[in-house]
Amino acid sequence: MAAAIDFYFDFSSPYGYFAATHIEQLAAKYDRDVEWHPILLGPVFKTTGSTPLTEVPMKGDYAFHDFERSARFHRIPYRRPEAFPIPTQAAARAVLWVRSKQGADKASQLAKRIYTAYFVDGINIGEPMRLVEIAQQANIDTTGLADGINSLPIKNQLKAEVDLAMARGVFGSPFVIVDGESFWGFDRFDQLDAFLRDGKI
Amino acid sequence: MAAAIDFYFDFSSPYGYFAATHIEQLAAKYDRDVEWHPILLGPVFKTTGSTPLTEVPMKGDYAFHDFERSARFHRIPYRRPEAFPIPTQAAARAVLWVRSKQGADKASQLAKRIYTAYFVDGINIGEPMRLVEIAQQANIDTTGLADGINSLPIKNQLKAEVDLAMARGVFGSPFVIVDGESFWGFDRFDQLDAFLRDGKI
Repeated sequence: MAAAIDFYFDFSSPYGYFAATHIEQLAAKYDRDVEWHPILLGPVFKTTGSTPLTEVPMKGDYAFHDFERSARFHRIPYRRPEAFPIPTQAAARAVLWVRSKQGADKASQLAKRIYTAYFVDGINIGEPMRLVEIAQQANIDTTGLADGINSLPIKNQLKAEVDLAMARGVFGSPFVIVDGESFWGFDRFDQLDAFLRDGKI
Repeated sequence: MAAAIDFYFDFSSPYGYFAATHIEQLAAKYDRDVEWHPILLGPVFKTTGSTPLTEVPMKGDYAFHDFERSARFHRIPYRRPEAFPIPTQAAARAVLWVRSKQGADKASQLAKRIYTAYFVDGINIGEPMRLVEIAQQANIDTTGLADGINSLPIKNQLKAEVDLAMARGVFGSPFVIVDGESFWGFDRFDQLDAFLRDGKI
């Protein structure tokens, strides 16, 4: 099997969520695995001097409208969360903890479940107790999860993951790297598809 | 005929150029006219607090790569201009002057020609004399054009056009407004197409 697709996302990114609903099907079409990398846009935006889209004058209203319209266009279930944006450290750490204890498959299952909880069910995934409930519903063994989310090793691991992502040039969500080629945004999935198909673009 | 499509663009915007190569064909498919609105991203970015994509840390290199890749993907001729970005006041004013003197069709012909000159032929369209040459090649009567570009009425008109665009919510290039619906970016032309087809999205 060819190299895995590195998929970077922040849990408060609607376009990251849209991408998460499509990435595995796209990867499977070309016999690729997906490595799920939850990151934090906060430190990334500090480096790039960016502001979250929805907080930029004029762009904010458009962005919320575009989230809903893009969801309809791509037939993705979506409900605007009441709390938005939210801190996503706990969610990212939960996924890293599950990955370290139970492997990548369980971790990606949890990631997808967290995204659905936030962008469909309106659950505030910034609260660690909600994350434990979400993990339980995804049939994940949550013994130690609540402590794990707050443990120093997992905190340090997330920091290192974000640093590594930035070192690889990741500056937004979703962000895909495969075979040395980078794609920013769900709206580049058409080009990603062509690249996976042809091996060039 | 249904209402025209308002098409906003800055002449130094590669995505604006890509959109300019597609907008008329798309409009014709749904029996619409296009109103070409050259604007300036400078004052817009002052309002939104934005920085040109290519000047943002980390995003710059990606952006230049994405321009070339997107051009190949959409089979649009494109060569990275040596001078980039450039001031586009003169180009925008040239189009406004031609529109006021010779009508909208001549103005849109000139706009397309200016984009090609910059993004295919590598001509520095920031220089008024180059604009006169480009207009001549487009079979436009250029008597008075050089003076027109620097005339107060045309300068004021461009300011007013930019203010009006911002008042309508335009914050980037390309930006399309039709039947009250706004679309930012060449990568929303798939949704624009669906909206024109179905009257909703």
